[in-house]
Amino acid sequence: MKETSQYVLANVNVATMTPEVEPYGMILAGAVVVADGKIRWVGAAADLPEIYADWTVRDMGGRLVTPGLIDCHTHVVFGGDRAQEFEMRLNGASYEEVARAGGGIVSTVSATRAATLDDLVASALPRLDALIAEGVTVVEVKSGYGLDHDTELTMLRAARQLAKLRPVTIKTTFLGAHAAPAEYKGRDDDYISEVCIPALRAAHAEGLVDAVDGFCEGIAFGPEQIERVFKVAQELDLPVKLHAEQLSHQGGTLLAARYGALSVDHVEYANEQDAEAMAASGSVAVILPGAFYTLRETQAPPIEHFRSHGVPMALATDCNPGSSPMTSLLLAMNMGCTLFRMTPAEALAGVTCNAARALGMANRGQVAPGLQADLAVWDVKTPAELAYRIGFNPLYARIHKGEL
Amino acid sequence: MKETSQYVLANVNVATMTPEVEPYGMILAGAVVVADGKIRWVGAAADLPEIYADWTVRDMGGRLVTPGLIDCHTHVVFGGDRAQEFEMRLNGASYEEVARAGGGIVSTVSATRAATLDDLVASALPRLDALIAEGVTVVEVKSGYGLDHDTELTMLRAARQLAKLRPVTIKTTFLGAHAAPAEYKGRDDDYISEVCIPALRAAHAEGLVDAVDGFCEGIAFGPEQIERVFKVAQELDLPVKLHAEQLSHQGGTLLAARYGALSVDHVEYANEQDAEAMAASGSVAVILPGAFYTLRETQAPPIEHFRSHGVPMALATDCNPGSSPMTSLLLAMNMGCTLFRMTPAEALAGVTCNAARALGMANRGQVAPGLQADLAVWDVKTPAELAYRIGFNPLYARIHKGEL
Ligand SMILES: [Zn+2]
Ligand SMILES: [Zn+2]
Repeated sequence: MKETSQYVLANVNVATMTPEVEPYGMILAGAVVVADGKIRWVGAAADLPEIYADWTVRDMGGRLVTPGLIDCHTHVVFGGDRAQEFEMRLNGASYEEVARAGGGIVSTVSATRAATLDDLVASALPRLDALIAEGVTVVEVKSGYGLDHDTELTMLRAARQLAKLRPVTIKTTFLGAHAAPAEYKGRDDDYISEVCIPALRAAHAEGLVDAVDGFCEGIAFGPEQIERVFKVAQELDLPVKLHAEQLSHQGGTLLAARYGALSVDHVEYANEQDAEAMAASGSVAVILPGAFYTLRETQAPPIEHFRSHGVPMALATDCNPGSSPMTSLLLAMNMGCTLFRMTPAEALAGVTCNAARALGMANRGQVAPGLQADLAVWDVKTPAELAYRIGFNPLYARIHKGEL
Repeated sequence: MKETSQYVLANVNVATMTPEVEPYGMILAGAVVVADGKIRWVGAAADLPEIYADWTVRDMGGRLVTPGLIDCHTHVVFGGDRAQEFEMRLNGASYEEVARAGGGIVSTVSATRAATLDDLVASALPRLDALIAEGVTVVEVKSGYGLDHDTELTMLRAARQLAKLRPVTIKTTFLGAHAAPAEYKGRDDDYISEVCIPALRAAHAEGLVDAVDGFCEGIAFGPEQIERVFKVAQELDLPVKLHAEQLSHQGGTLLAARYGALSVDHVEYANEQDAEAMAASGSVAVILPGAFYTLRETQAPPIEHFRSHGVPMALATDCNPGSSPMTSLLLAMNMGCTLFRMTPAEALAGVTCNAARALGMANRGQVAPGLQADLAVWDVKTPAELAYRIGFNPLYARIHKGEL
């Protein structure tokens, strides 16, 4: 067993993403010692302690090692797809015509409700596999397309099931407050009372919830309604996060910061006051360029404010059937740089150390002793190449919990 | 031999991309008969002639067949990369600082001149493999980073070499008139006389040139200089194409149309008169959204004019180290739809039938009897899904010259 569970990754450059050394926490001509699923040691190969001298060596040929990538905001579990609606719109159909044809989130809710647990797992797997193929080792998965008690729980059960079928860590997020379903139209508060909160309590009792999320927007819920959900999360000792300030400024960010949110996501319309509040609460700004790109938005998130106030920034795919049918985290990195002028170092931090923080995971996202051995080995010379290329996957090897 | 070279692709829906039937030339519950590298028959499975009844059947499980994809505008052969420059810019370096550090096209020209033929082939292969993995069966490859006699020829030899190493068809394009190299600064006409035209003649004599291209732009060559190259192409009986109206309106499109160009490429700044001229000359508009995206341009190509005047539109990656380090043709389809509002049917025509036309290939780009059996089989229900998803590859099988 020693051969497979204990080894030295040799002949590597390591972007440790540890905060001490800038940029990338780079170690050239390094080595990483892995034992029992954890990182035992990392440093310059010349300094490798004698004690590891007879361990199995895995020569990586001078390649780059980074932490395994973390996609900290996805909706990969859902029924159906929205290709038909995509095509109708481009063929000139109006939003009304699309709605009449059953398009929009309504169509995804219908398809998700009609799906079985097995259907949801089966349709999510290709999307998950696409992420895994790019070195992703942790994926967050939200509910929020059931919008009834049973389907919200089924979505989260499907998410938990994915972790049993693939070598990947899944973090689940309850997003009952995504939208009010058709049967609660105009009765948002009743939906929160009668469906969202009871489903949250039931899902939590079943151990299905790692965090609680909401969509605070003119077309979704206001801060008062979101706060009712956050209060229950607080009572259940669950961390919160929020989709906020995506299409307009609604004040969700300040609310989320008051509740010590792990992250506030989208945040295109956040202002400097919001950035200050996030810095104070330690909330991560999760930047989602796939939705910005797909919706052809023009208001970019205030990257400069996040930088100047020290708000950590993450990047994620937001993989969902409507506004971001994207399954490439490397492309999200490129979009973060190209569309929002993030630096390649910020982009890599956004899918490693800061993404771990957005999920409240202290033991991931860096290459450091004691952390879980989730690693990606890349066929590139410099970490900047990961964000520079478009639609190219230079992954050479992927390690999850020490397993190659 | 009959088993491998003659077979029926059964249980398929076929987007034939033939012009008779709209949209997609779709055949549901179809079959495709392949014999000796060519398409022998295509139609509804119920109509399959008796004569093929005992042929080997390859059941595709109801999947979608399209023509093999064609990337009709790439620069996949080059030395080095520009990740460092990408990072410098995002870290706030000015264009002058980047230039002083040896950035821009100059750095690619230096790296390409320093590379051997084998180096160029080896560095192009991963890019080519990324295209092939998405069902691409024909790739156009340009010279234009040598800008001296020998290196221009070496680039084209490398392109020819690629076709021997992978099951893909390569079309070569001579792009000596890409830019004047540093040693000819301010002496553009001398460069055309002393390097570009002699290199074109030599490359043609060696059988290295399938078409002749140029870059007509304020930062490159004017129409008069391009015309000098086109005249030689005409004399050599080589078809022409042109990078034109990308960053400004220079009049290259009208020039190209006068020379019966196979295609005019980029064309963001083309106007209605240009579209009329292209329609009259039968030139394809090659739309390159990757460069538009990377350069953060705001002027979209006049899709409406191309539509209303019946100019065929193709889509390509423009894969190059500076303005479009992109190796996904599926992503180019999504960008064509998202950024330029092309329809999914236009996007698929853009990488099949119209891309074939942009390369002057009459025997590709459609699923029709007599054409070469270059096919892609996709794990999707509708062809719109190919353009709808972002960073997802649903390729199930790829057939080049009848070989699976
Ligand atoms: Zn979301
Ligand atoms: Zn080009």
